[in-house]
Amino acid sequence: MRVLFNEELKAVADDLDHLARNVRDAIHCAGVALTKQDLDAAQHVIDMDVETDQIATSVVDQCVKLLARQSPVATDLRVIVATLRLSVTFERMGDLARHIAEAARRTYPQSPIPASAQDLFVQMQDFLDVTADRLVTMLADRDTEVAEQIIRDDDKLDQIHKKTFELAVDDKWNVTHQQLVDVVLIGRFMERLGDHAVSASRRVVYIVSGFDPTKEPTPDEGTDID
Amino acid sequence: MRVLFNEELKAVADDLDHLARNVRDAIHCAGVALTKQDLDAAQHVIDMDVETDQIATSVVDQCVKLLARQSPVATDLRVIVATLRLSVTFERMGDLARHIAEAARRTYPQSPIPASAQDLFVQMQDFLDVTADRLVTMLADRDTEVAEQIIRDDDKLDQIHKKTFELAVDDKWNVTHQQLVDVVLIGRFMERLGDHAVSASRRVVYIVSGFDPTKEPTPDEGTDID
Repeated sequence: MRVLFNEELKAVADDLDHLARNVRDAIHCAGVALTKQDLDAAQHVIDMDVETDQIATSVVDQCVKLLARQSPVATDLRVIVATLRLSVTFERMGDLARHIAEAARRTYPQSPIPASAQDLFVQMQDFLDVTADRLVTMLADRDTEVAEQIIRDDDKLDQIHKKTFELAVDDKWNVTHQQLVDVVLIGRFMERLGDHAVSASRRVVYIVSGFDPTKEPTPDEGTDID
Repeated sequence: MRVLFNEELKAVADDLDHLARNVRDAIHCAGVALTKQDLDAAQHVIDMDVETDQIATSVVDQCVKLLARQSPVATDLRVIVATLRLSVTFERMGDLARHIAEAARRTYPQSPIPASAQDLFVQMQDFLDVTADRLVTMLADRDTEVAEQIIRDDDKLDQIHKKTFELAVDDKWNVTHQQLVDVVLIGRFMERLGDHAVSASRRVVYIVSGFDPTKEPTPDEGTDID
């Protein structure tokens, strides 16, 4: 019984790793699509999101089956509950990367981001590329140090995001309405990717230590943009 | 044992109902703050969100404890897993309502929405007020008909939201950059409130029927705004 349980736990953990790798690839490719006007990269993100959704659904199913058949307790239960929630977070991150890729596809061969904001978006993308790689490592190695690094560093993304906002609300900034809308929404999607990475990191800390860092007083994740 | 379990299930269901009522009140008051420049209503939403977060955390805790101590199967397991996910959805809805209230508070005594877009935002708010009431009824009565109504009707919100977008990207629309940003983001928050209501409705269908309607091919919820 225990052997079978361990095999099933391993299978769901492998699927969750797969999900994290998909999210990492989606974030990377969405960034390439956005900052280098690469239509293939954009299409890849959009296509991949279908698989990501399927894996996420399958992970939830496997978790519910494990709960039903094995009645896990202690660490096993914690792993399964956290896995359930991580799959939802990763599925949402795939959606956000797809939104960015769709914007890049829509404006191709132009960038949705005006030249004067490109540098800030490249900075945000560089940050997210690092975070995406960290996500995969953190999950594969159950590494709480990497998790804490992601949680700690999110502030940097929020700072760059805030600058895109200051640019956007300046009436002297000479852009079309469509460009302004894209800057605001794509910036929001990128900031949310950072928030979700923080949320995933908290789940991994919970798996490993049993301590739920969401219970610290954090009324809002990330910069309040409104 | 079973008596105690039923009592604990009842307690967590009561907390979930409380959460749904908080979300309903937050949506109503955020709408009043937004469309009637009511600073007290805005502040009420912001204050209430702290309680909403606390209840949501407590619901997750209770679910994990029930899973650990009672090893539920079949319907009970389904209820607990769905409750766990519903609490996350409601917590997020509280955040979105708060974002709207914060925007209203920031621009007080002006509205963040320019006069020429007010009518569309009143229409979206009217829709969300109805949805918020339905959410509470659906959950209290485990009413799948109301759930299906919410799922079916979400398209209407997306249609109005799309109109705010068409207005926003028109370069002839005479608004400040800040107003444009607010129209885009507040519109996005309202559209996401609708998406989350749909997601909550699917969870309730799952509780009652065991059928998970998220497995239907729905690659995206709501209008794709980017």
